[in-house]
Amino acid sequence: MIEYWIGLVATVSFGMSGVLAVRHRDVDIVGAMVFGIVTAVGGGTIRDLILREPVFWCAEASYLWLILGGSLTAFIFRRVPRRAGQLLLYLDALGVALFSIHSMDRALNLEFSVGASVLMGLITGTGGGLIRDVLSGRTNLLLSKELYATPIVAGCLFYYALLEFNPNFEHNQLLAISAVFSLRSAAIWFEWMMPSFLISRAES
Amino acid sequence: MIEYWIGLVATVSFGMSGVLAVRHRDVDIVGAMVFGIVTAVGGGTIRDLILREPVFWCAEASYLWLILGGSLTAFIFRRVPRRAGQLLLYLDALGVALFSIHSMDRALNLEFSVGASVLMGLITGTGGGLIRDVLSGRTNLLLSKELYATPIVAGCLFYYALLEFNPNFEHNQLLAISAVFSLRSAAIWFEWMMPSFLISRAES
Amino acid sequence: MIEYWIGLVATVSFGMSGVLAVRHRDVDIVGAMVFGIVTAVGGGTIRDLILREPVFWCAEASYLWLILGGSLTAFIFRRVPRRAGQLLLYLDALGVALFSIHSMDRALNLEFSVGASVLMGLITGTGGGLIRDVLSGRTNLLLSKELYATPIVAGCLFYYALLEFNPNFEHNQLLAISAVFSLRSAAIWFEWMMPSFLISRAES
Repeated sequence: MIEYWIGLVATVSFGMSGVLAVRHRDVDIVGAMVFGIVTAVGGGTIRDLILREPVFWCAEASYLWLILGGSLTAFIFRRVPRRAGQLLLYLDALGVALFSIHSMDRALNLEFSVGASVLMGLITGTGGGLIRDVLSGRTNLLLSKELYATPIVAGCLFYYALLEFNPNFEHNQLLAISAVFSLRSAAIWFEWMMPSFLISRAES
Repeated sequence: MIEYWIGLVATVSFGMSGVLAVRHRDVDIVGAMVFGIVTAVGGGTIRDLILREPVFWCAEASYLWLILGGSLTAFIFRRVPRRAGQLLLYLDALGVALFSIHSMDRALNLEFSVGASVLMGLITGTGGGLIRDVLSGRTNLLLSKELYATPIVAGCLFYYALLEFNPNFEHNQLLAISAVFSLRSAAIWFEWMMPSFLISRAES
Repeated sequence: MIEYWIGLVATVSFGMSGVLAVRHRDVDIVGAMVFGIVTAVGGGTIRDLILREPVFWCAEASYLWLILGGSLTAFIFRRVPRRAGQLLLYLDALGVALFSIHSMDRALNLEFSVGASVLMGLITGTGGGLIRDVLSGRTNLLLSKELYATPIVAGCLFYYALLEFNPNFEHNQLLAISAVFSLRSAAIWFEWMMPSFLISRAES
């Protein structure tokens, strides 16, 4: 059940972020909603293909209607948030946190190695957002100064540690998701960056 | 048989649109033809992967030779059409119409829900063109002012209605393909757009 | 065994090229390494999905650690090569040569037609680099003036000829890989281009 809700919140968040990403482009309501859907299902589709399992939105149609609802809501209210660009980043963070830990869990259940499972979390977590950024002509978030990939990798390793040292606790997944979301949100809010010797800068 | 021809015209149209998309870029004949092929097979490849079926061009090699022929023709005559940019859009419209209805039909045959089948039509119909636009550095067609996603969604729903109310008619697929192509062509020719309150504009 | 080394050198080369591609962008060490990994595994992942086989990095985790090592090395020494942009091109050429011939071989073993096998070589060889170029905002290498797709196609056809006329020789694959790499390297070094009537130019 929790699996279902994780997938749902993740896809709807990504869907809304996709609509917000094109709010300053020439796009009509149907085009914007298609953007939302593609962003929402992109990462999970790539995950299911790599895991060789049925693609999630083919089997469970309820996702689509809720993504449509979220995208429509985001289109109608796209002018309301004073800082819609920031809202996009937090919606992305929520989707990233849910998708990455959830996918890592699925990969571990399929007996993938830790490394491959973390990569699965990374690809799934960032996939939808990368598709959104490429199609909407935005600079993608991997190229952001604030921490982006780091919270995902850290959260995935944290999740693995939880499973190792705390295997009987039933909320390990929620703990790790909270860790990724908190860390990424703090990175957005406080503009947390790596120490400068670990950053490659555009101007240099 | 009709299935085969639908796939063929769709892929060759997309292939030619891919070559026309890079006619103003620095690219040689082989590079341009690779562009054509990738555009031609992109959407159908994504569809086959999601449907978990053998990828169409692996099994049926005759596609490749005809795509090659179409791409070569487009390269040789790339300067001839006075409005090659418009021709690109109509070729894209033809590919989109054929691919989207055909893929929706395949998804329905696999017992997908209506929503998932329409999404399959959308992804397949637009997939090749999105890859073309991203790789050639063009603004993708989802971000066009004229109706683009709407004719596909409308045509897919129309096809579903035809199957419901007219199940014994054998040309439902061609009817729906004509509907998508006509609607999208009219949108290009007459610059049909949504009413402005349903459009998000770049300048706003 | 040789299979393993081909895959390894190809992925590590691509991984290093991915890091070099973002050395002038705002990106931190973890983001850059994710770029490297995505570039490294992109082409092979697409190949395995199309061939309907297990994705290589899921089964064989040693790849990931070596890609990580290569990406880290590339990040640390990103300022050292005086012409890192050129180095990127040669690393790409090495990855392209190894991946394209290796994938063509796998497709031929699965009884694909020659045309489909060459296309598999092309898609696998160029796939990772195209993802790298799109995500890093670079003009992709298919749009380069120097020969890029041509060495791959020529090398794949050469490999097919070797298998036909020289089936008992055990180093056909290495010969064809050397051919692709040499031809592409010469194209970079000597700026080899097609005759101008076979080139579509940006200014025209």
